[in-house]
Amino acid sequence: MSAHQIPKTQKGVIFYKNGGALEYKDIDVPTPKANELLVNIKYSGVCHTDLHAWKGDWPLDVKLPLVGGHEGAGVVVAMGENVKNWKVGDYAGVKWLNGSCMNCESCELGNESNCPQADLSGYTHDGSFQQYCTADAVQAAKIPVGTDLAEVAPILCAGVTVYKALKSAELAAGHWVAISGACGGLGSLAVQFAKAMGYRVLGIDGGEGKEELFRQLGGEIFIDFRTTKDIVAEVNKLTDGGAHGVINVSVSEAAISASTEYVRNNGTVVLVGLPANAYCKSEVFSQVVKSYKIVGSYVGNRADTREALDFFARGLVKSPIKICGLSELPEVFELMEQGKIIGRYVVDTSK
Amino acid sequence: MSAHQIPKTQKGVIFYKNGGALEYKDIDVPTPKANELLVNIKYSGVCHTDLHAWKGDWPLDVKLPLVGGHEGAGVVVAMGENVKNWKVGDYAGVKWLNGSCMNCESCELGNESNCPQADLSGYTHDGSFQQYCTADAVQAAKIPVGTDLAEVAPILCAGVTVYKALKSAELAAGHWVAISGACGGLGSLAVQFAKAMGYRVLGIDGGEGKEELFRQLGGEIFIDFRTTKDIVAEVNKLTDGGAHGVINVSVSEAAISASTEYVRNNGTVVLVGLPANAYCKSEVFSQVVKSYKIVGSYVGNRADTREALDFFARGLVKSPIKICGLSELPEVFELMEQGKIIGRYVVDTSK
Amino acid sequence: MSAHQIPKTQKGVIFYKNGGALEYKDIDVPTPKANELLVNIKYSGVCHTDLHAWKGDWPLDVKLPLVGGHEGAGVVVAMGENVKNWKVGDYAGVKWLNGSCMNCESCELGNESNCPQADLSGYTHDGSFQQYCTADAVQAAKIPVGTDLAEVAPILCAGVTVYKALKSAELAAGHWVAISGACGGLGSLAVQFAKAMGYRVLGIDGGEGKEELFRQLGGEIFIDFRTTKDIVAEVNKLTDGGAHGVINVSVSEAAISASTEYVRNNGTVVLVGLPANAYCKSEVFSQVVKSYKIVGSYVGNRADTREALDFFARGLVKSPIKICGLSELPEVFELMEQGKIIGRYVVDTSK
Amino acid sequence: MSAHQIPKTQKGVIFYKNGGALEYKDIDVPTPKANELLVNIKYSGVCHTDLHAWKGDWPLDVKLPLVGGHEGAGVVVAMGENVKNWKVGDYAGVKWLNGSCMNCESCELGNESNCPQADLSGYTHDGSFQQYCTADAVQAAKIPVGTDLAEVAPILCAGVTVYKALKSAELAAGHWVAISGACGGLGSLAVQFAKAMGYRVLGIDGGEGKEELFRQLGGEIFIDFRTTKDIVAEVNKLTDGGAHGVINVSVSEAAISASTEYVRNNGTVVLVGLPANAYCKSEVFSQVVKSYKIVGSYVGNRADTREALDFFARGLVKSPIKICGLSELPEVFELMEQGKIIGRYVVDTSK
Repeated sequence: MSAHQIPKTQKGVIFYKNGGALEYKDIDVPTPKANELLVNIKYSGVCHTDLHAWKGDWPLDVKLPLVGGHEGAGVVVAMGENVKNWKVGDYAGVKWLNGSCMNCESCELGNESNCPQADLSGYTHDGSFQQYCTADAVQAAKIPVGTDLAEVAPILCAGVTVYKALKSAELAAGHWVAISGACGGLGSLAVQFAKAMGYRVLGIDGGEGKEELFRQLGGEIFIDFRTTKDIVAEVNKLTDGGAHGVINVSVSEAAISASTEYVRNNGTVVLVGLPANAYCKSEVFSQVVKSYKIVGSYVGNRADTREALDFFARGLVKSPIKICGLSELPEVFELMEQGKIIGRYVVDTSK
Repeated sequence: MSAHQIPKTQKGVIFYKNGGALEYKDIDVPTPKANELLVNIKYSGVCHTDLHAWKGDWPLDVKLPLVGGHEGAGVVVAMGENVKNWKVGDYAGVKWLNGSCMNCESCELGNESNCPQADLSGYTHDGSFQQYCTADAVQAAKIPVGTDLAEVAPILCAGVTVYKALKSAELAAGHWVAISGACGGLGSLAVQFAKAMGYRVLGIDGGEGKEELFRQLGGEIFIDFRTTKDIVAEVNKLTDGGAHGVINVSVSEAAISASTEYVRNNGTVVLVGLPANAYCKSEVFSQVVKSYKIVGSYVGNRADTREALDFFARGLVKSPIKICGLSELPEVFELMEQGKIIGRYVVDTSK
Repeated sequence: MSAHQIPKTQKGVIFYKNGGALEYKDIDVPTPKANELLVNIKYSGVCHTDLHAWKGDWPLDVKLPLVGGHEGAGVVVAMGENVKNWKVGDYAGVKWLNGSCMNCESCELGNESNCPQADLSGYTHDGSFQQYCTADAVQAAKIPVGTDLAEVAPILCAGVTVYKALKSAELAAGHWVAISGACGGLGSLAVQFAKAMGYRVLGIDGGEGKEELFRQLGGEIFIDFRTTKDIVAEVNKLTDGGAHGVINVSVSEAAISASTEYVRNNGTVVLVGLPANAYCKSEVFSQVVKSYKIVGSYVGNRADTREALDFFARGLVKSPIKICGLSELPEVFELMEQGKIIGRYVVDTSK
Repeated sequence: MSAHQIPKTQKGVIFYKNGGALEYKDIDVPTPKANELLVNIKYSGVCHTDLHAWKGDWPLDVKLPLVGGHEGAGVVVAMGENVKNWKVGDYAGVKWLNGSCMNCESCELGNESNCPQADLSGYTHDGSFQQYCTADAVQAAKIPVGTDLAEVAPILCAGVTVYKALKSAELAAGHWVAISGACGGLGSLAVQFAKAMGYRVLGIDGGEGKEELFRQLGGEIFIDFRTTKDIVAEVNKLTDGGAHGVINVSVSEAAISASTEYVRNNGTVVLVGLPANAYCKSEVFSQVVKSYKIVGSYVGNRADTREALDFFARGLVKSPIKICGLSELPEVFELMEQGKIIGRYVVDTSK
């Protein structure tokens, strides 16, 4: 590979205060630290979390000014002196977890997302809504050569998140997994991963064309919440005793609590969506007698990321995206606020 | 062993309708089916569940008339033609799970307590508040020869229950386990099992002499809920990040919900007490980001029972009991209703 | 269902001493015990173990005289008084493990095959080479209504055995599993189960048409041991570090030992074939530094059986069989002795 | 803490070719890289591996010239710019695994010892037989303040190794663990860890005073191989069916193979000692029918190290050592070669 000329400045979208203007403009290209890669971002997915970071409505403070974005796919153009196992020209992914301390108890156990010093792309570390972004070399995702960098972008966060949630359900091939919110951005990825993992997929969702989409993705039983009178009874009947696992990508509090009633004895309810101020309520007597679990699952670690990318690389999971220019990001945020987004937007940093 | 003369009638405590008179009187000795043992009960523990069975205030109907009791320890005096691995003279324990179908999915997976056809001693099957009781030979507990049959009685339900709850927390030696309600009947057994399993024990309870008792049982950190302002903060500080596991034997709804806040990242909250109409509430955002689990644990299976009895037989767990005559059972129920019981009553069926 | 007329005598193949004549003749119909089903066997698979039972060349003595067979599929026509969850007319499978004690440590832990009192069909208990066979109701396999009883027969032993071996490898979807002997009777089932469980399958075998068969079954990489110079190096290269799991259905001692060299770091070698007098040798230094496991896997338990049958019922695993009459069994044994069998013979008990 | 004056040169033991002179002399103090600590080593354990490194008789080449040692305990005196979570004055341990890449598959899964780029103290990286040693900050062990740095030294390798081996056996409290070679350096630590983890310990060893030592450490059953005729039968009898786990710290090939015969059904044989050119042989038929596992266990990872140190810090594991000066290291090597060492030597780097 011929040497890449790294410019001093670049295009990026930056904001200076929460809720302030999203400015598409020339900003400095960052310099990688000893442990970091400099990645020339080609494409970046846009996620609801980016909206929260901009608005500042989560309990954790963001860095300001901030360049958002945490689903960045690009090419390594430079790296710090301590970096191992990477070379210029490699494809790299910039994830939500930009870096972690690697020597606290959580990191030691492979739970790096739970590290108290977690450094978060597009939140506490300038992210992928720019042409050049830095990323810790240990956490950055290796993307196989030849991968479509636009399509892979959403796998780096949305894909890893649902894949990890499915792993957290501790199912075996042949088990029933219910996906609550099966046809949204996260849900449609979850259906495909579940299918590739050998599970039988029951999806719950509602709306025009949803069942058709669900079946195309490999789903087996579809329950339309608009027309099904008693969802709990229906799931329990159709799965002959309840789903072995439930993945709650829907953020409806009522849907989450219902999932504790259609999970099988000794099964697992996974919480993975992040509704604000919502509670999961389970009836104690019933949870004891049915002996089911409720588990929180948060993004994924290095191994989860490598594995999720491998499913994508083998063509088992497809990621339906809409591409627009980075300069159009403010409009995408507006659509998102209005709830008008279907599928996943990916921004092209060259436009 | 010389042949035991099995009488036609025996003493037992029976009631004919829920809440009706508890009659201590002569009743027929039951005949074991092909798969059953006839056990000459020497001692039986008295449990809160027995009170619920008598009152009939649980959703599941009891058999009527009913002889209660499900912590019976005695001697095998006869057995059906299909029974394997038992002989007359063996010590046997009659547990809550008298028998199960052994070929449904729950039974196949060793989750026999969750069997839809579970037959329950002192609830759907005449129990251990009589001198002769029948029990399925597969589920009946083998009690090592030489065991004190009065002291072992509470291990058959209370002991197995807390032991299984500790196993459900999936801890490793050296981990912190918090026991909410550490000094009650279940709690004091839980502290001893936890200690014998190599865990570090933090107990939460309140009242005169509780801390002293807790330390005698092997506990390490005691938190008195009467004098501790912020229990959550205190547990998190003293365990350097929260307890790896929490065993909720306390049935207070507030205490249960608090336990979701002092469990460690990736740790496990176990529900095991059976409060009526109580809910466990967890904040979804926090459960995801901390990635902890909430698990229901219900009694234990055949292996759990054998293991719990082994800890008792090796002297690692002691069971503090008060012995009275079976004829005095109505008075024990009355004390229980008034909340005046401390420790575990065991009835001697010969009196 | 109208009542089935149970005759007093039936056709069966019986032998009176090891290696003696295999007589196809009229024998008594057995009477089920209190815990047993009487199954009208329609079809039975023929397995190498049946040959060993007849010859008596295994360390464990067989019952004599003996009716062999342990892959019997048929219909329940009667049952003992203690039987639960079965009714006349149900489809039932008679497996290698006819019954076990259900209250030893192995049984309690779900390892019923390891029960010291295991009762074995066609070995210590008259088996499925007759029209009416008894089977313990707890161990008998439930076969879904509508299943082809001839095709399902080999699933009851060969299928369950390879499915359990795959479970014993403790793999995750996306992992590489190498199957040594991929195109034989066990191997071809293993490839299909592995594929359905989401694994990537590498097969090792040799001979005309083997690779083509392997690919039809869903295999991904085929290594022909006749033409590959360095199998170990080849597996390690093609799987980028070795297979996560290896299933040794080949009974070649050299092949088994080679598998310890192409298993991945922290991976698992499964022993499942039963060669006489063979040893598995691993180099200690290398096993420590690579930290891999060697695991023995023996048939499967009730849950494994139910699950394996479910894969078959859903069409994910096909069982290629040749059907002949029960009266022709002696000829099948002869072909087996001569190593001339390809695929699985199934006998029709009506002929 | 007042600033520590770091000298330019220091005392160390160095050799220039395998088997060459072990020179105690002035050498340069190394400079930590961006990711490294500089540790002022106070004490270092001496291990058989150090002898192998000096002789060069293992398949892996050592760095030359080399300063050996990989059980170093000391104080952090400087650190590179990228180091997190350490400060000057902290106690640090230098382990066998000095550093690893942290982004290969093995590292991602927490199996850092299996990293192909593992950097080994006293082997590929100058080790702890000097006063100042560099160590990767992520892999270096945190030693609690107040710890005796001489006594803790052997925990850093010998302790972690046996602790990890015990974890690899996947036992539960109350299970039997057999330790083959129970009274040697590794064995005596294994007995103590096993006891603290709630296991029942059976030890196999031979010689004067061994049984007494074993009992002092908390062992329950001692088998003297010099006087026991049939060790396999004896273990199977005394543990009522075989040990649930076996830890082979003995490097005798015969002892290792015997352990496959006294392990319980479904139990685990752990290989952890590193005999040269030795093989573990298991009979395939028996391994299948008994369904036991053979597992290699290699040192331990960051979490294992933290946990092993915690058992030591809580006083549950004692480490009996003999202290001598670093200048006396050549004499210690000579004693080791002659097999005259009992217990563990620790060198004081100030002498």
